[in-house]
Amino acid sequence: MGREGFFITLEGGEGSGKTTIIGRLAAYLQNRSLPYLITREPGGIEIAEKIRSIILDPAHTAMDARTEALLYAASRSQHLAERVEPALKTGLIVLCDRFVDSSLVYQGYARGLGMEEVRAINQFATGGRMPDLTFYLDIEPEVGLARITASGEREINRLDLESLAFHQKVREGYRMIAEANPRRIVTLDAGRPLHVVERELIHTLEDRLLKDF
Amino acid sequence: MGREGFFITLEGGEGSGKTTIIGRLAAYLQNRSLPYLITREPGGIEIAEKIRSIILDPAHTAMDARTEALLYAASRSQHLAERVEPALKTGLIVLCDRFVDSSLVYQGYARGLGMEEVRAINQFATGGRMPDLTFYLDIEPEVGLARITASGEREINRLDLESLAFHQKVREGYRMIAEANPRRIVTLDAGRPLHVVERELIHTLEDRLLKDF
Repeated sequence: MGREGFFITLEGGEGSGKTTIIGRLAAYLQNRSLPYLITREPGGIEIAEKIRSIILDPAHTAMDARTEALLYAASRSQHLAERVEPALKTGLIVLCDRFVDSSLVYQGYARGLGMEEVRAINQFATGGRMPDLTFYLDIEPEVGLARITASGEREINRLDLESLAFHQKVREGYRMIAEANPRRIVTLDAGRPLHVVERELIHTLEDRLLKDF
Repeated sequence: MGREGFFITLEGGEGSGKTTIIGRLAAYLQNRSLPYLITREPGGIEIAEKIRSIILDPAHTAMDARTEALLYAASRSQHLAERVEPALKTGLIVLCDRFVDSSLVYQGYARGLGMEEVRAINQFATGGRMPDLTFYLDIEPEVGLARITASGEREINRLDLESLAFHQKVREGYRMIAEANPRRIVTLDAGRPLHVVERELIHTLEDRLLKDF
């Protein structure tokens, strides 16, 4: 009682299998009767949703890249304050689909705003809160994109259609961050069959929950 | 031709006379046939206005202080990109009513988010663009607030009603920044009659425009 929860984030490029893996993770936690919360920004938090709708409004073609990055950070800050922090305080295991690393990689690195610059505004947005554990699902961009096309499981979105060079930069960015944070970030080869990835992930999770939670 | 404009900001607490002084400044530039633009955030810039409306929505009582600061920075970034930078590029003298210093003082210092932290997100928002010249209208909070009440020239707003201690912190914050930036920030004693303040301001401006513009 009074023990703080455990904050897990999932990261990865398009077609890396994040959504499916989160579902498996949830099933695992459910089976072990561990209390958890699955979320992603803006996650139905009213203020965060309104901020996102400004970002996504197709009429806003004139949006400055810095404005956009600040709005993502603002949405993150509100989602964190209203959903993640209260859940952690009540001792839940929080699974968040994408977090600061996504901004560093997509906006800071792949779009060229600067990783350190984007880190600074995210440091502010999160008040320094970082995940206890991050799973990075690493996959060749060609394989990831082919998966999306083949599965037909969802519509191809704007990000999918970026050039392959962009997706390669995303992967490069993730790998740099993973290398710089070997304790927090666990890289999983997501090119393997899903049940293999899942097994490795659960194994790591059990190990870390036992040690840290 | 090809010469960049000159970026002037006005700063000061409640009742310091900023609005009146900006009007006088405009009249002066008009008389000298200098091309100028008067603006303030969000300034009718659509994206910036939408961001402000999220900040000001009275329904958003749950807004996190960090979210608010990030939204102010986002609004600033867009206003800067769409209005200020283009005007400076075409050689105008831009007069902006409040800028980064206001955020440092109000959010960073008086509300306690931390000046350096708020500076970091504003550094990102502005891409490092700072005013060439800033006039800080310094006034005793008691005198400033009494002016607003006496003049009846506008409604008392939420900020006016903050405690006197808050307004004193605002003044303290401005003075710290002014001291740290003696070249950029010119402090004017705004407790004196307006025509005296105006004369000193115009004198300083002529001097600086001759040297720097």
